[in-house]
Amino acid sequence: MANLILLVIAVSVFGLMFAAYLSRWVLRHDTGSEAMQRISNAIKKGAEAFLRRQNRTILLLALVLAVLLFIGYGFIRSHRDFDPVGSSLELATWITISFVFGALCSVFAGYVGMWISIRSNIRTAHAALSSLNEALRIALRGGAVSGLLVVSMSLLGVAGLYALVHSFSPVDPARIPLLIVGYGFGASFVALFAQLGGGIYTKAADVGADLVGKVEAGIPEDDPRNPAVIADLVGDNVGDCAGRGADLFESTAAENIGAMILGASLAMSAEKAGMGFSMGVIGVIMFPLIARAFGIIASIVGIMMVKLDKEEKMDPMTALNRGYYVAVILAMIAFGLATYWFLNSPSAPDAWWHFFLCGIVGVLTSVGFVYITQYYTEYKYRPVKGIAEASKTGPATNIIAGFSVGLECTALPTLVMGAALLAAYYLGRSSGLPNAGLFGTAVATMGMLATAAYILAMDTFGPITDNAGGIVEMSQQPEHIRKKTDRLDAVGNTTKALTKGYAIGSAALAAFLLFQAYIDEVLQYSGKGHGFNFVVDLSKPVVFVGALLGAMLVFLFASLAIRAVGQAAQSIIAEVRRQYAPLPRENDIIQFPKDFEPEYGSCVDIVTKAALRQMVLPGLLVVLTPVVVGLAFKMFIVPGDELISAQAVAALLMVGTIGGILMALVLNNGGGAWDNAKKYIEAGAHGGKYLTMPDGKKIKNPTHAAAVVGDTVGDPFKDTAGPSLHVLIKLLSTITLVLAPLFI
Amino acid sequence: MANLILLVIAVSVFGLMFAAYLSRWVLRHDTGSEAMQRISNAIKKGAEAFLRRQNRTILLLALVLAVLLFIGYGFIRSHRDFDPVGSSLELATWITISFVFGALCSVFAGYVGMWISIRSNIRTAHAALSSLNEALRIALRGGAVSGLLVVSMSLLGVAGLYALVHSFSPVDPARIPLLIVGYGFGASFVALFAQLGGGIYTKAADVGADLVGKVEAGIPEDDPRNPAVIADLVGDNVGDCAGRGADLFESTAAENIGAMILGASLAMSAEKAGMGFSMGVIGVIMFPLIARAFGIIASIVGIMMVKLDKEEKMDPMTALNRGYYVAVILAMIAFGLATYWFLNSPSAPDAWWHFFLCGIVGVLTSVGFVYITQYYTEYKYRPVKGIAEASKTGPATNIIAGFSVGLECTALPTLVMGAALLAAYYLGRSSGLPNAGLFGTAVATMGMLATAAYILAMDTFGPITDNAGGIVEMSQQPEHIRKKTDRLDAVGNTTKALTKGYAIGSAALAAFLLFQAYIDEVLQYSGKGHGFNFVVDLSKPVVFVGALLGAMLVFLFASLAIRAVGQAAQSIIAEVRRQYAPLPRENDIIQFPKDFEPEYGSCVDIVTKAALRQMVLPGLLVVLTPVVVGLAFKMFIVPGDELISAQAVAALLMVGTIGGILMALVLNNGGGAWDNAKKYIEAGAHGGKYLTMPDGKKIKNPTHAAAVVGDTVGDPFKDTAGPSLHVLIKLLSTITLVLAPLFI
Repeated sequence: MANLILLVIAVSVFGLMFAAYLSRWVLRHDTGSEAMQRISNAIKKGAEAFLRRQNRTILLLALVLAVLLFIGYGFIRSHRDFDPVGSSLELATWITISFVFGALCSVFAGYVGMWISIRSNIRTAHAALSSLNEALRIALRGGAVSGLLVVSMSLLGVAGLYALVHSFSPVDPARIPLLIVGYGFGASFVALFAQLGGGIYTKAADVGADLVGKVEAGIPEDDPRNPAVIADLVGDNVGDCAGRGADLFESTAAENIGAMILGASLAMSAEKAGMGFSMGVIGVIMFPLIARAFGIIASIVGIMMVKLDKEEKMDPMTALNRGYYVAVILAMIAFGLATYWFLNSPSAPDAWWHFFLCGIVGVLTSVGFVYITQYYTEYKYRPVKGIAEASKTGPATNIIAGFSVGLECTALPTLVMGAALLAAYYLGRSSGLPNAGLFGTAVATMGMLATAAYILAMDTFGPITDNAGGIVEMSQQPEHIRKKTDRLDAVGNTTKALTKGYAIGSAALAAFLLFQAYIDEVLQYSGKGHGFNFVVDLSKPVVFVGALLGAMLVFLFASLAIRAVGQAAQSIIAEVRRQYAPLPRENDIIQFPKDFEPEYGSCVDIVTKAALRQMVLPGLLVVLTPVVVGLAFKMFIVPGDELISAQAVAALLMVGTIGGILMALVLNNGGGAWDNAKKYIEAGAHGGKYLTMPDGKKIKNPTHAAAVVGDTVGDPFKDTAGPSLHVLIKLLSTITLVLAPLFI
Repeated sequence: MANLILLVIAVSVFGLMFAAYLSRWVLRHDTGSEAMQRISNAIKKGAEAFLRRQNRTILLLALVLAVLLFIGYGFIRSHRDFDPVGSSLELATWITISFVFGALCSVFAGYVGMWISIRSNIRTAHAALSSLNEALRIALRGGAVSGLLVVSMSLLGVAGLYALVHSFSPVDPARIPLLIVGYGFGASFVALFAQLGGGIYTKAADVGADLVGKVEAGIPEDDPRNPAVIADLVGDNVGDCAGRGADLFESTAAENIGAMILGASLAMSAEKAGMGFSMGVIGVIMFPLIARAFGIIASIVGIMMVKLDKEEKMDPMTALNRGYYVAVILAMIAFGLATYWFLNSPSAPDAWWHFFLCGIVGVLTSVGFVYITQYYTEYKYRPVKGIAEASKTGPATNIIAGFSVGLECTALPTLVMGAALLAAYYLGRSSGLPNAGLFGTAVATMGMLATAAYILAMDTFGPITDNAGGIVEMSQQPEHIRKKTDRLDAVGNTTKALTKGYAIGSAALAAFLLFQAYIDEVLQYSGKGHGFNFVVDLSKPVVFVGALLGAMLVFLFASLAIRAVGQAAQSIIAEVRRQYAPLPRENDIIQFPKDFEPEYGSCVDIVTKAALRQMVLPGLLVVLTPVVVGLAFKMFIVPGDELISAQAVAALLMVGTIGGILMALVLNNGGGAWDNAKKYIEAGAHGGKYLTMPDGKKIKNPTHAAAVVGDTVGDPFKDTAGPSLHVLIKLLSTITLVLAPLFI
């Protein structure tokens, strides 16, 4: 076993070193003119200040929770016979250590991701002056630093903790995963607040800057005279980069641990049936880590392959896609090898390739999600065109059409997800091993997440190119340079939308895996063993009420997240109005003095404070609801139904997950569709941005104005509430995993 | 037993006769001036034409389904040992007969309800010329005809079918409810299409008339020059009256049968335990019908009590509330007597008052729902005020705020519902009888529905007063008359909102009851008996996928319903433009000739066709999804898991219900809040409808314009998709009840 762990650790260290190499490569590039640097420095300063303060708040909350966890496990819950370790204090110690470690790693990953992103943006902008290819590579490799860091660190963390427990405690290696579940919880705890805070920040700044700038002062978007414009650019970094980084960090961490728990169950029940694996129980437990390690290497190769042709005529998206396919194919080959190596049972010769097919199912699912997302959010297709068409009769019909598209777009992903789950389950079940169906679904999830590092690189590519565009715009570069960054920016928007589809798909599959891990854990802690038939029986009133609360939690959380954006935006608007108050006016129109220098810092400061204040309530709601239900519903425990509270929590988790997936699809795709309907009109459809009247006067096109309303409504949907729901889904899973022993 | 059935039939006949008396009373009143009659006749003609064509379409669909049901049960599904009757053909015959009978009754109830409503409106309008009290009484009694008819007919239908089966078939009386479940399905099948078609009609006409009239032609609402204005008034009748009537008809029918099935189970298991009821098994089976019969009488007394004080200073709402409280108190007293009489078991002396308390829980739940609905939709409170405030920064922030309110308002009702379910369950469980928990929740539902006739009268009161106001407006009556009808109209808006809250609350409780009936039925048909532990185990992938599909169904259905309104509205807009095309224009503004007479009929005709076409797809989606899942998932049946398909359908049903309740709350209350935010501004808040400029010129207030956008968005939410979701919830329950034997 030591060798396997060492291999995993070695690959993750290699991943980290490669991230360091890429970051040095990015930093070697030139940082451009002074004008560019001034803007970039303002962004950097704002982003770092926000992240520092946000991290302080989050770590404080995490500290409180760590203390509560330690007290809860060490002193309140008494030791039980079936606990994996000998004493309450030891259990409390491992759980708390892994929680704190997970939280710290997540904070670190988010911070470093943003650190390199705010340094890549200006270098991308400067490279665009000479070469699109170079700009593309800087942006992608800057994003890849984040991607590699996140995936490698999550792997290193899990493997390291496993090794740590193994060397200090005499616990059965197959039960170690139960002790390190806290790592996933720590990571998702941080991710929830990072995504929420960042999401509120970015959209409050965006909506606030737009409303007060475009609507009240009549100045264009990204205009340097708008005091909120730097806050808006900062938002791209703290929302999209740091938030998404933390999100995928916990995805991979939680999924690793969940798959290890299920693998341990499978291997042990196979051994009992006399069908042991050739690499033993430990081989199966290590399989998820090995598969992930191979995925890192495949992603690195893919990333290094990306470049444009010599004439730079190629669509940058094609280059990115080519790299992705290379990564996918390599990852799948490696995945096949790993299944053959670790999931081989001499008495079930078909098992390994059944699991390999499960992995393929996972990959196909992610491809399916990506295509469906494209269909619903790109203006080539019916949905976005319909929204643009509906804008002709005003903002109301635009909203109705967009909302209808959002609701509709839940159907296909649900069917894909359902088919994938059932296919993987039945592949696993027909593998020849006993009870291998659930492990099949776990393997599908691993397949889907195999290229997570590449996906994350593409995702962070988005805000880097977005910022590069902003820097080029604000430092007033010539038209042909802007065209180049615009091309990159358009690609960045596409990758951002696609990776959101990927994130929700992987969250859905991972959630199902984590439910099973939860059930497994409940059985282990309650000493019922695998023979016991633990069911999550919705027909019991207590369980049904748990399910009801889970679905409601999603709705309430989305409401709070959306409202938070509105309230934080109000504080920005007030500040900009304060700055504009002393300016001279003619006919109520502001006459900006030539030397007007807005105070960017105060806006950054205000939105920072507002976002941090607003993120606390929805965040705590998610953390506390399952805890309260789990503990309060213990009052319904009766003889013969000792696990009723654990069942109610499971129902909360599962139905909350279903609701969360659907709501996130509505919010993400609805928002994306509105955004692109506006862009479609700006590209000239239905009259474009301005109409020319018979007398030659140009007037604003009301159809475009209607589409702008939809776009603004979609902002908090797709960039605050939607992505936060991905994290909510996983936080629910990890928190129930960590606290399961308290509910029984 | 014969006596009990006779009592029930006698009371329901009495209810019908009383409805006939009320309708004669209403018709005796004067129909006013010729101008009024012209408008009223146009409404009448349009409404009757729509309903005739809609009924033809619906009955055709029902006929196809009846044939399929008969073939499916009579020829495809082979007879099983545990079927309640001796042959497939007999089973098929009873199920088909009860389905057809339910469908016919539902069509009839909807038709008569609308028939009286379109005759009450003009009489209310004319009475308002002299006496507010008289107008109030006509409107309420007109509504009561509908209410009494619906409730009495559903009772008569169930009791009559029961008697019919009992006299023609030797089947065990306790298993008769299984044979008549088709009645509820027939009723909800019709209700779904009636509510959908009516809802699409009403909002397509409303949105179409507004967009083309106010926005394009610049004429006020309800202006007689708008060709779509009669279609709009017709819509109030066909959407709110006929739709809601069919909705509550099937609520009470389905709930009656479901409660009878659960009662039979309870009574039989009590007898087995030697704790039989003093009125025997039949007494318990008849209890739901008796309780409902008492409720009819209580409602009649309440309705007859409603009148204003002599000076007519009293708020009409107070008068309605007083009548409601009388009905509630009487119903509760009668409910207590009924529990004492029928649910008395000598060996469990506490049982009857435990069940009585369950009934009280049901009543309190309905009161809770009504208060929560008021909080979220009236402009006295924070949510609506917040939306109005957000309108100051434009339509986008108005939409964001309203959507956030809609999402938020799911929380409190969920908590109330959860508490009610658990309380009733534990009251039942502690009654001293074995397995009485679920019956406790059924009794709570009965308590909630006890005053359904009164609630329905208040609900139909809404469109009657709305139409009366429209008639008074269009026939240009003096200001003080309009004030009177405006007072009634405002009350009507409140009652409509409150009854929507009531409808969703009762749908939720009734759904839980119907799940249990479904499970009971599956056990009976599969011959597993009550000892068998049928679970709806969400942790099985097949069941989880069923749940996922159920939630998705709700989202997709809402999308289709909302989009249908948009598309039908487009056809109205095109028709009005066609009529306006030849009119003279100055500066693109239409100059209406003095003698301009729009062609109302063509608009009515077009929206009729559009609504009927658009209702088919979403309707069939709801009907087919559970059938397809139930039949297709039979492929996952393996030895030891024979009921997996039935489980998956149960999960689809339950999670679909949870999703449906939450989504309906979002749509109903969000829509209501947007509506009232607009009214709040029109009442003078944030500057009112018009702003006076420094130079004395009046301009439109942009805050009001923003609120109008929200109101228009809310229209299809609250009047099409939301109410249709209530029916969807119940249709899912009844269709699974009817088809359960096919899934196992």
